[in-house]
Amino acid sequence: MSSVIGNNIKISIFGESHGDCVGCVIDGLPAGFEIDMQDVNKEMARRAPGKDKTSTPRKEDDLPKVISGFLNGKTTGAPLAMIIENKNTKSGDYSNLMKVPRPSHSDYPAFIKFGANNDIRGGGHFSARLTAPLVFAGAIAKQILAGKDIFIGAHIKKIGSVCDSGFDYNNIEKELLEHLSSKSFSVIDEKCEELMRCEIEKYRSSGNSVGGEIECAVIGLPVGIGGNIFDTVEGKISSFVFGVPAVKGIQFGLGFGFAESNGASVNDGYEVKNGKIRTLSNNNGGVLGGMTSGAPIVFSVAMKPTPSISTAQKSVNLETMENEELVISGRHDPCVAVRAVPVIEAAAALAVLDLIM
Amino acid sequence: MSSVIGNNIKISIFGESHGDCVGCVIDGLPAGFEIDMQDVNKEMARRAPGKDKTSTPRKEDDLPKVISGFLNGKTTGAPLAMIIENKNTKSGDYSNLMKVPRPSHSDYPAFIKFGANNDIRGGGHFSARLTAPLVFAGAIAKQILAGKDIFIGAHIKKIGSVCDSGFDYNNIEKELLEHLSSKSFSVIDEKCEELMRCEIEKYRSSGNSVGGEIECAVIGLPVGIGGNIFDTVEGKISSFVFGVPAVKGIQFGLGFGFAESNGASVNDGYEVKNGKIRTLSNNNGGVLGGMTSGAPIVFSVAMKPTPSISTAQKSVNLETMENEELVISGRHDPCVAVRAVPVIEAAAALAVLDLIM
Amino acid sequence: MSSVIGNNIKISIFGESHGDCVGCVIDGLPAGFEIDMQDVNKEMARRAPGKDKTSTPRKEDDLPKVISGFLNGKTTGAPLAMIIENKNTKSGDYSNLMKVPRPSHSDYPAFIKFGANNDIRGGGHFSARLTAPLVFAGAIAKQILAGKDIFIGAHIKKIGSVCDSGFDYNNIEKELLEHLSSKSFSVIDEKCEELMRCEIEKYRSSGNSVGGEIECAVIGLPVGIGGNIFDTVEGKISSFVFGVPAVKGIQFGLGFGFAESNGASVNDGYEVKNGKIRTLSNNNGGVLGGMTSGAPIVFSVAMKPTPSISTAQKSVNLETMENEELVISGRHDPCVAVRAVPVIEAAAALAVLDLIM
Amino acid sequence: MSSVIGNNIKISIFGESHGDCVGCVIDGLPAGFEIDMQDVNKEMARRAPGKDKTSTPRKEDDLPKVISGFLNGKTTGAPLAMIIENKNTKSGDYSNLMKVPRPSHSDYPAFIKFGANNDIRGGGHFSARLTAPLVFAGAIAKQILAGKDIFIGAHIKKIGSVCDSGFDYNNIEKELLEHLSSKSFSVIDEKCEELMRCEIEKYRSSGNSVGGEIECAVIGLPVGIGGNIFDTVEGKISSFVFGVPAVKGIQFGLGFGFAESNGASVNDGYEVKNGKIRTLSNNNGGVLGGMTSGAPIVFSVAMKPTPSISTAQKSVNLETMENEELVISGRHDPCVAVRAVPVIEAAAALAVLDLIM
Repeated sequence: MSSVIGNNIKISIFGESHGDCVGCVIDGLPAGFEIDMQDVNKEMARRAPGKDKTSTPRKEDDLPKVISGFLNGKTTGAPLAMIIENKNTKSGDYSNLMKVPRPSHSDYPAFIKFGANNDIRGGGHFSARLTAPLVFAGAIAKQILAGKDIFIGAHIKKIGSVCDSGFDYNNIEKELLEHLSSKSFSVIDEKCEELMRCEIEKYRSSGNSVGGEIECAVIGLPVGIGGNIFDTVEGKISSFVFGVPAVKGIQFGLGFGFAESNGASVNDGYEVKNGKIRTLSNNNGGVLGGMTSGAPIVFSVAMKPTPSISTAQKSVNLETMENEELVISGRHDPCVAVRAVPVIEAAAALAVLDLIM
Repeated sequence: MSSVIGNNIKISIFGESHGDCVGCVIDGLPAGFEIDMQDVNKEMARRAPGKDKTSTPRKEDDLPKVISGFLNGKTTGAPLAMIIENKNTKSGDYSNLMKVPRPSHSDYPAFIKFGANNDIRGGGHFSARLTAPLVFAGAIAKQILAGKDIFIGAHIKKIGSVCDSGFDYNNIEKELLEHLSSKSFSVIDEKCEELMRCEIEKYRSSGNSVGGEIECAVIGLPVGIGGNIFDTVEGKISSFVFGVPAVKGIQFGLGFGFAESNGASVNDGYEVKNGKIRTLSNNNGGVLGGMTSGAPIVFSVAMKPTPSISTAQKSVNLETMENEELVISGRHDPCVAVRAVPVIEAAAALAVLDLIM
Repeated sequence: MSSVIGNNIKISIFGESHGDCVGCVIDGLPAGFEIDMQDVNKEMARRAPGKDKTSTPRKEDDLPKVISGFLNGKTTGAPLAMIIENKNTKSGDYSNLMKVPRPSHSDYPAFIKFGANNDIRGGGHFSARLTAPLVFAGAIAKQILAGKDIFIGAHIKKIGSVCDSGFDYNNIEKELLEHLSSKSFSVIDEKCEELMRCEIEKYRSSGNSVGGEIECAVIGLPVGIGGNIFDTVEGKISSFVFGVPAVKGIQFGLGFGFAESNGASVNDGYEVKNGKIRTLSNNNGGVLGGMTSGAPIVFSVAMKPTPSISTAQKSVNLETMENEELVISGRHDPCVAVRAVPVIEAAAALAVLDLIM
Repeated sequence: MSSVIGNNIKISIFGESHGDCVGCVIDGLPAGFEIDMQDVNKEMARRAPGKDKTSTPRKEDDLPKVISGFLNGKTTGAPLAMIIENKNTKSGDYSNLMKVPRPSHSDYPAFIKFGANNDIRGGGHFSARLTAPLVFAGAIAKQILAGKDIFIGAHIKKIGSVCDSGFDYNNIEKELLEHLSSKSFSVIDEKCEELMRCEIEKYRSSGNSVGGEIECAVIGLPVGIGGNIFDTVEGKISSFVFGVPAVKGIQFGLGFGFAESNGASVNDGYEVKNGKIRTLSNNNGGVLGGMTSGAPIVFSVAMKPTPSISTAQKSVNLETMENEELVISGRHDPCVAVRAVPVIEAAAALAVLDLIM
């Protein structure tokens, strides 16, 4: 039962949605690394709520306060701890949820697991607000990786029925990733943004929510990173990514498309080009035998629709043990996939940093 | 770089495809557990090669020899170690692969990672033969779980263009899982077996291979298993399952189907039935907020087509650094998904055992 | 390179002596546990500096502020995070230490390891001030253990040439442990306190420091806790205890006295008494084959004299690479063993809690 | 409950004293390392029983058989697995021990822990025979370390009332360590061997046993190895060393001598010599703030007298729950410290390798 992850870099995340704060401790960062805090704050802003109708109206400035491990603009080598205060909380909204669990949310299993002692307000420790410290830690990881010419970027591949162009698996430029990483609504094909916003609004306006898919790429890793049977690049990235609320699936390269494919069509042959070996295609998403192949790592994750919707739902009263209709009145994103883009990038960055350190 | 996994149960897997043996050490089993070795051998037989045209013609009886931790038919509480001798090896087949890596296989990254010191014969430590000890360990885990009324079973959901019926997510009977677990070609809709065998033969006969999808279910887990942010049921199962060669994706419940769904349609409401709370549907595949919801755990994995095909492929010569055509002459399964069914069950069983101990 | 420890309970410690704060995150506490904060503060007060001449004159009230995982007086099951602000810092004292490392202190290896980026002020992350969060976490662990009838207490066994009575290994009462745990200067034989205070004053008044030995006992553990080869009670306790600055040795039961002993004299025979099995003696300090024997766990630790003394010492200037005399002007305990008693209890409590959960 | 240890190098030990074999899996070794098996066998011979009256008369040739991870004389990068067959077992000797536990041995707690399912023959998994695979793994670690100019050696510092000269903490030559590592009875002062053998014989001849102390040194480590609070060199070495049966204490440098010392006398000052910084003394045993100081690492361990003695002892019958006298008739070392020297070296080598990889 742990909110700690990593072998070489250990990230410990704490806090609750409506408690004093959320935060994290990052253990194992190299000493003397100059953190660009302005850049970190840009990443925080990408995830921050309250910007427009695609996100919850809860406004939080999400300014991280570093309280240890950082001196004169550089890491000291001691654990780096950070907190973000919670300011705009409205806990009254959640008063009835302790008794009547929200469908498809952590409420019911958490109630059983923690014997009703968990902090239900705003989802408590299970809230998507806990991704703020993840983005903070990931922003630092991305800076460290950039110093090693490793770059990460993601985009919204799909929302409901609207699809963005996908990455060209075998040919992903640093410029594209940096461009995607600079946006608060990340798509490759700019025309998609408006279509996706409409799709979200369609569901939001009717008190509903919609799911999405996020595609992420990592370039610049050397060949042979990752290891033996249980130390695969896929397993490592998955263990970080499933820590992000609402993620329900992950696939590398063709992923589930492989089930319908034949080897002759999808095998990634090799060629020598300019004295270097490279794959002719990258259906494997940059991972072979659990190790990096030198091609870009490409994976995508499925995100379920926000379970908190304002239309009436069937639930039960845990006290009376009778069926009860539930109407949720809190403030929620109609589509978590939009703000989850920097979170997936952060999870990937931390997984990759843990792999190479 | 590790072939060890697990927190409470630790499984260490060793061996190479054409070395002396493959085997494993299982650390943390309860003492005094009576292992039904006949049942273990049945599981081994499900995975064993050489049965028919859907698998490699390499014949191995795959009889596990327990060499520690087991006395008078029971576990002693000390680590249980087991080896399976390799008998039917034809290493001559692999003589050219050290220089010319097979596309979509571990050869090239392993060559770089291990500086050409890795055992390339039969894929060495990266061979699917290493799943034999995984099935052994999983068979014991399944027996322990059955004693706690937890049951696991899987079936081939798809091979190429042929699909089996899927699980009824919210209503999976022990009898169905036991039935699937007793078969060497596991499908729910019996008619599919012949169609799938034809699909495989179509590719095999032309020196090609085909991918597949395996769906797995776990029933009987109490509510609230799994934990905080990075200790999710999804992350735990993924970390075991990506240890199985050829797995390229995993999804829980609707998985990637969530991306196109809206909350009102896919949220899993609750009802009280016979004094107990249960979900009205199970699109979340039995996991909410990373914890078990009480509904069956249902997940599926994508398996890529066997990369080793006998048609000519584009590769490179690592010595001369020139392009070179590769024709693979070894013995290989035309579709790994068939024999992988008990392997996925085993990985799931070990992950679940690790979660509840 | 980690300030995280534990398998079932994970404690992550952060902060620096002269930074904003010190603190910790405790992951894996049971939900719904009612923490007696008054009792926690008593433990904090035992460790707090500034009380009298046996400790540093730096005064800190050391009031822990819980910032997550705690609601309505109970644990929520989410990670419990806590910070203690640093108030009475005088960082000017440390200005020359970055260049001229204090003998027997972490300064020089930390300078090399962290490339001079570490926070040297007050010893930074290596300061004994980091034991404050350890005592906080340990105080909670002790409360949980007390609920299971497991009790822990320690006393100063030796300071310089003054020795306290030792525990009667095979017969330690809860009342004695509770008595020791309530004191700020813990000795079994009350007469020793004055003698030890004189011994310390002798060294303090001459700008010197003195070492000590602390003996700790744990009663109430069932037989058979601890495990196979690398999961011994001794190893577990050691891994926590060596996290306490200045500890340079640990021994269980007779410990180093065993080297001069013969089996016939020191073997711990068994008897049946009132229908229960117990050992006739407890030279093994309650641990056999790495497992608890049912007798009290008794161990002692050696603590070196505070390296920071005010007499002139031989050191080097890391910039000029020339020999340089060093006079340390900061505020330091003349004998760390006094305030380390609750710290050793805390480390033991956390190790034991990690073993039994 | 684990016989697995290590973060970067993982060692999994299995087997029982009177089972088929003992063995280990070493995960994480660098690929392409040429193992000198003749040298490994020399280390095995140092530990092997049956040589003379200081050890058990059980004769085992202890030839390790490598079964994976090793090809053409080099490591492959896959887990290296090894087994040693048990040949000279006489299990009849142990028939009564299941009911009447040997004092100071693992028998009683193991009986309770494993519910009488543990293999009691020869001590089963708790037997000192399990140190054979540890020595094997350590021998490989020593070879890898030697390639990095890191050397390890140990000697018997004390047996009963006979003491060897100690290491000169601050000045230990590679030649001395290699000399000690080549012997089966390792002492610095050669005259001590005869005296110690007499001391052992005195106890052996009267059906008794005697304890001892082993001192071990590691030279050649760079400054700054080891890490933050819970990742100390002391903690790491302890966690490996307490896996060796009969170890009851460990101290670094002056260790328990610090308790009687004052800072002015024992602080290790610095000097610049030939342009390099070195300590003027090494009372800290090469570790400051948990990190290497550049001076030799020196630690010693206390080993209790072999608990299995042939004189009658007080025990209990676990079936009848009555007191019962026990006479042990098996074959045992009269002093485990002699054969434990290469075991302590091995544990230190593995701990150090785990620290630097």
